Amino acid sequence: MRSIGVLKEGERRRLVALAPAGVARLRPQVKVLVQKGAGRAAGFTDEAYLEAGAELVDGRADVMQQADVILGHDSHYRGEKLDGPKTFLGFFNVLNDRAVVDAYAHNGISLYSLDLIPRTTLAQAMDVLSSVASISGYQAVLLAAERSLATVPMITSAGGTLRPARFLVMGAGVAGLQAIATAKRLGAVVRAYDVRAASRTEVESLGATFIEVNGAIDTRSAGGYAVEQAPEQLERIREVIHSEAAQADVVITTAKIPGKSAPLLITEEMVLAMKPGAVIVDLAAGTGGNCALTEPDATVMRNEVTILGPTAIECSCAHSTSFLLSNNYTAFIEHLLKNHAERPNDEILRGTRVVENGVVVNARYLGN
Amino acid sequence: MRSIGVLKEGERRRLVALAPAGVARLRPQVKVLVQKGAGRAAGFTDEAYLEAGAELVDGRADVMQQADVILGHDSHYRGEKLDGPKTFLGFFNVLNDRAVVDAYAHNGISLYSLDLIPRTTLAQAMDVLSSVASISGYQAVLLAAERSLATVPMITSAGGTLRPARFLVMGAGVAGLQAIATAKRLGAVVRAYDVRAASRTEVESLGATFIEVNGAIDTRSAGGYAVEQAPEQLERIREVIHSEAAQADVVITTAKIPGKSAPLLITEEMVLAMKPGAVIVDLAAGTGGNCALTEPDATVMRNEVTILGPTAIECSCAHSTSFLLSNNYTAFIEHLLKNHAERPNDEILRGTRVVENGVVVNARYLGN
Repeated sequence: MRSIGVLKEGERRRLVALAPAGVARLRPQVKVLVQKGAGRAAGFTDEAYLEAGAELVDGRADVMQQADVILGHDSHYRGEKLDGPKTFLGFFNVLNDRAVVDAYAHNGISLYSLDLIPRTTLAQAMDVLSSVASISGYQAVLLAAERSLATVPMITSAGGTLRPARFLVMGAGVAGLQAIATAKRLGAVVRAYDVRAASRTEVESLGATFIEVNGAIDTRSAGGYAVEQAPEQLERIREVIHSEAAQADVVITTAKIPGKSAPLLITEEMVLAMKPGAVIVDLAAGTGGNCALTEPDATVMRNEVTILGPTAIECSCAHSTSFLLSNNYTAFIEHLLKNHAERPNDEILRGTRVVENGVVVNARYLGN
Repeated sequence: MRSIGVLKEGERRRLVALAPAGVARLRPQVKVLVQKGAGRAAGFTDEAYLEAGAELVDGRADVMQQADVILGHDSHYRGEKLDGPKTFLGFFNVLNDRAVVDAYAHNGISLYSLDLIPRTTLAQAMDVLSSVASISGYQAVLLAAERSLATVPMITSAGGTLRPARFLVMGAGVAGLQAIATAKRLGAVVRAYDVRAASRTEVESLGATFIEVNGAIDTRSAGGYAVEQAPEQLERIREVIHSEAAQADVVITTAKIPGKSAPLLITEEMVLAMKPGAVIVDLAAGTGGNCALTEPDATVMRNEVTILGPTAIECSCAHSTSFLLSNNYTAFIEHLLKNHAERPNDEILRGTRVVENGVVVNARYLGN
């Protein structure tokens, strides 16, 4: 592995997987090739990449040919001709979109997908999922506030005093906690729910109220991810959420289960009980949605309630997101360069390697 | 004056000039007629108006015929046949859009426009301009943050620490101060400029830094409005602003001069010096704009800088805006009912009356 190539992402995403700062960090160890204009939409100029020590190449085909490791956050191999063995690296959501792996099952190709990063201390700096979730939670609040018929903070003017908006945040993972923090900053009254009773402390430390549902399962043992609930518990949760949603000006849902459809948390009946002008931002829209009425990347209006299901909301603040992603990918690449020859089966490399020399090898992907 | 009629505003505005709470306040003194669906887009149902004591009427023509006082924030008389003398009331921006007055110069019509409200203590509760400005400043920050390539607060995650965004707010009137307060809430570093040196205290009390330009004129004497600056002073201001804009992630401009074009504060050259991904929100877009590249209600991209010129940004949070407007109009109507017969020439009525019985009478409008 003597060179890393950075692809320009598709039109829809404005991100770039490696920022100039990442180039500067990797440059002493490997040559870094960057496709021209790769960082432009994220606010990183070609000049900045050159100054950081990158070599600019004209197009995608040049990256494919010249680099050993090909880096694209969401930019896939499309069957182009390859000279020699190549390693692809990105965030390909392979558990939810299993078919994407097929393209890589050819001789000589290896694929690492960072959605499979283990949730260990060492891997934290490489946790792309966490970076994306953090920005998504922040951006969801801005989107909701911008679309809401009501202002968020208490505003006192000569015309009277506007009461603070009431936010309901569902799921207190990284995205949910950042949504809570942002809504609190803006001056909202925030109530939050998570199936993990252990979330209470985190929710309360941000100044929000934790919603109690009897019989909550503590799922902290499940690797930090949410797990599925029993049907009767889901029903209890729904009753509580119904009453919370009816009082909310904004609902933000963030409940995802890796490799599965998102749990249904907001039913059509609940939407119909909500206030006119209320807004739902469903961050699980990409995997079926937490709200029954969500349509991915569309604005649904029902009974004067607006339901938004952005599937790539982190791309709105592409500069900041790319900055975090770049740090994650840089940390991973440093780890890869250091260990791939001597310790190819360490927890991080084994955990994220989906395809090795054309053969699908990942235990989580294969369901073992 | 025995009845007030509330018009449904045009499609573009989602506002309503009187909320159910306003109906309840006025009901003991006058009959209140409300056009069906008038409050719907602002989150006020017809049922809520009925409960507050309003009488619902089917259409605009019914309001015109049956009411003595016809209230529409931005909803004009269109030459419909009128039964008897009518009083029109709204916020018609008559100094900037002088032609609108012509429609009212017919026998029997009187017109009050609340953009002319004097800035006295008694009139404060009727200050529609201030309500609109307050919400506009708030919403401008949300819009900018939502469109910005960078996140606003400092965000610390495993992927690194995002530095807080830098906001430049031009004009520290009601809109500017609310923009400063909102940006500070969100966690931005805020720098603000106003030609009135006296603004420093207000800017600093919100935690922002006041930008110093030598030779600033204290224009506090001009009734609280901004006034025009001498050309050489404008040049000095431009030099300072050029350097400030080049460092900003977001620029919000709020400088308006009643009855005149907005002053040019952000030149094309300054835009070209700004960071890729930066956002300008120009709240003066309706009167020519503070930025040379602004186009009203359009998104202009130049050199990776986004320039937004929303002319009715307060309509985004129509519920909150309508709540404030309703309080303003209610206070004015109470004053009108109390004084129109006995003291028709008190400062507030004389100041806001543009047309009296078909004759244009307003001193500010006539330029006397």
